[in-house]
Amino acid sequence: MKAVLITNTGFDGDFQNNLSIQKISEPEVGENDVLINIKFAALNHRDLWIIKGAYSKIRLPVVPGSDCAGVVSSVGKNVSEFLPGDEVLVNPGINWGENENFQSGEFRILGMPDNGTLSEYIAVNKNYVYKKPEHLTLSSAAAIPLTGITAFRSVFNKAELKETDCLLIPGIGSGVSTFVLLFAVSIGARVFVTSGSDEKIKTAISLGAEGGVNYNSENWEKELVELSENKINVVIDGSGGDTISKCMEFINYGGRIVSYGATLGNVKNFPMARLFWKQLRISGSTMGSPEDFNEMVKYIEKKKISPVVDKIFELDKITDAFDRMNKSEQFGKIVVEI
Amino acid sequence: MKAVLITNTGFDGDFQNNLSIQKISEPEVGENDVLINIKFAALNHRDLWIIKGAYSKIRLPVVPGSDCAGVVSSVGKNVSEFLPGDEVLVNPGINWGENENFQSGEFRILGMPDNGTLSEYIAVNKNYVYKKPEHLTLSSAAAIPLTGITAFRSVFNKAELKETDCLLIPGIGSGVSTFVLLFAVSIGARVFVTSGSDEKIKTAISLGAEGGVNYNSENWEKELVELSENKINVVIDGSGGDTISKCMEFINYGGRIVSYGATLGNVKNFPMARLFWKQLRISGSTMGSPEDFNEMVKYIEKKKISPVVDKIFELDKITDAFDRMNKSEQFGKIVVEI
Repeated sequence: MKAVLITNTGFDGDFQNNLSIQKISEPEVGENDVLINIKFAALNHRDLWIIKGAYSKIRLPVVPGSDCAGVVSSVGKNVSEFLPGDEVLVNPGINWGENENFQSGEFRILGMPDNGTLSEYIAVNKNYVYKKPEHLTLSSAAAIPLTGITAFRSVFNKAELKETDCLLIPGIGSGVSTFVLLFAVSIGARVFVTSGSDEKIKTAISLGAEGGVNYNSENWEKELVELSENKINVVIDGSGGDTISKCMEFINYGGRIVSYGATLGNVKNFPMARLFWKQLRISGSTMGSPEDFNEMVKYIEKKKISPVVDKIFELDKITDAFDRMNKSEQFGKIVVEI
Repeated sequence: MKAVLITNTGFDGDFQNNLSIQKISEPEVGENDVLINIKFAALNHRDLWIIKGAYSKIRLPVVPGSDCAGVVSSVGKNVSEFLPGDEVLVNPGINWGENENFQSGEFRILGMPDNGTLSEYIAVNKNYVYKKPEHLTLSSAAAIPLTGITAFRSVFNKAELKETDCLLIPGIGSGVSTFVLLFAVSIGARVFVTSGSDEKIKTAISLGAEGGVNYNSENWEKELVELSENKINVVIDGSGGDTISKCMEFINYGGRIVSYGATLGNVKNFPMARLFWKQLRISGSTMGSPEDFNEMVKYIEKKKISPVVDKIFELDKITDAFDRMNKSEQFGKIVVEI
């Protein structure tokens, strides 16, 4: 079968030097496994970090990719829940463990060390396979898994977002942040965004955000406070760094901040007095439990939520797809047709 | 009546230059007020910060002090809940407001700008007056209010501490931290402490802590992890600074950190990846709502908790009392007999 392989890490400006499409053998199908003929996969920053060698314990070569949707090709002998022809998606969070509050030491994400989804076939334990929501195409469903679960847990489990809340999403455009936007809008919360691109702010508004400010503006915090009538009481953020300390200045008393990533790194001067005097709560979140995934799929189905797909690339344009993500040009998920 | 007055701020090493005992007029008693003949007051770091001029909007002269216990002397015409002779204590958190989650903009703490408790009499709205728990002396009851409520909200409302948790209290000895210790021990949680004083660690163990390490030791984190069998999953801290970032390294996945103060200032390099990957929750806490105060008094009564009183000073030794706090020599509350 055809698959994308990361052959070596360390990015020199040309993904051709990291990735190649090769023929590899089809996966073996265990007795509890579902063999899926992948129709669409989607990219995540995680794949980019692996290519750039930003994780420890990277094992190569590996098929990258955590997200996919496809058609069941065959099933192991203990699998009665799925039949060949079923359209499915996959929870990429393997071995979460017993505790809803955090992942176990055995937790891993599909696509390194295990081979991932940029491949014609994948064999997955039936516990990680979910029927595709009926209202979605396979290309849309492929956009859900990793970022959908990260956003779902951040919005509902960690931020405990309510209709009466006023949410800020810094840096709109990434897969997680666009899902956060969709989930927040779906419950009727007020949503504001920041971005370095006025175009992305417009797109966010078209998806239900009330407004946004460009963080390249010197006074973006002031503009945001005015735009939101100083109502922001929840922030769901993947950037970290100064974003966190700035948000702690203008967020309202009793505010909740959820962090699911830190592209800007650590907070250099974390303002303790804001934390305790304003009674803030800062929660870290990573991926989600199987229970979260199950709830998310049901929620997306019930609310007929359509993931934001940025662009669909052919498999042989995989380096172009990674280029787009590397330059942060996307709004929503970058999908790859296998 | 006699009262301690802060006459000027800016500490030069001698509290005689900041404090004086003077005769001032007795407070007026409004129709909803209770006039209390204060028998004992207690000091808080807040009083020290005011003397040192560390707050904005300091109005002088002022009677410092947020904590007291005493005997009802008279009551306003709308007060039927208390009678002269009742032994009472006072909730020093005025105008909390409607929201349990955070204090209102009108919130203020007894003892600046309002005259405080280092005085023979105080007139307090009946809503802030509570009957003294029967098992306590007036000198013990005076040790409760400000630090008790701060600890109670931190332990139960913010950390949501359970019997199965393993708690670290950094810097044991302050009023809040000793109350945190008492509350945590009262529910059967495992408790570890740090201190710069081996003597204070011993005292903490005598009060129910399982063990502690001296933070002047170069490898205190490592020692603590070994001593606690790497079980620490909750930290309740008033120091801030490096304490927070160090605790984020060794705390377990799903850990909860509560911050009620920051004597060490801001966190210089707040480790974002620890926050989100370990699914940590960091909650700020300040004082507590009237509901918290009410619950705390009931809890102390039900569990027959005795506040840790460090030492009782005569009123005319008030500068010695502040000296002791300024040098962090105390373990528990410094009480002043009026």
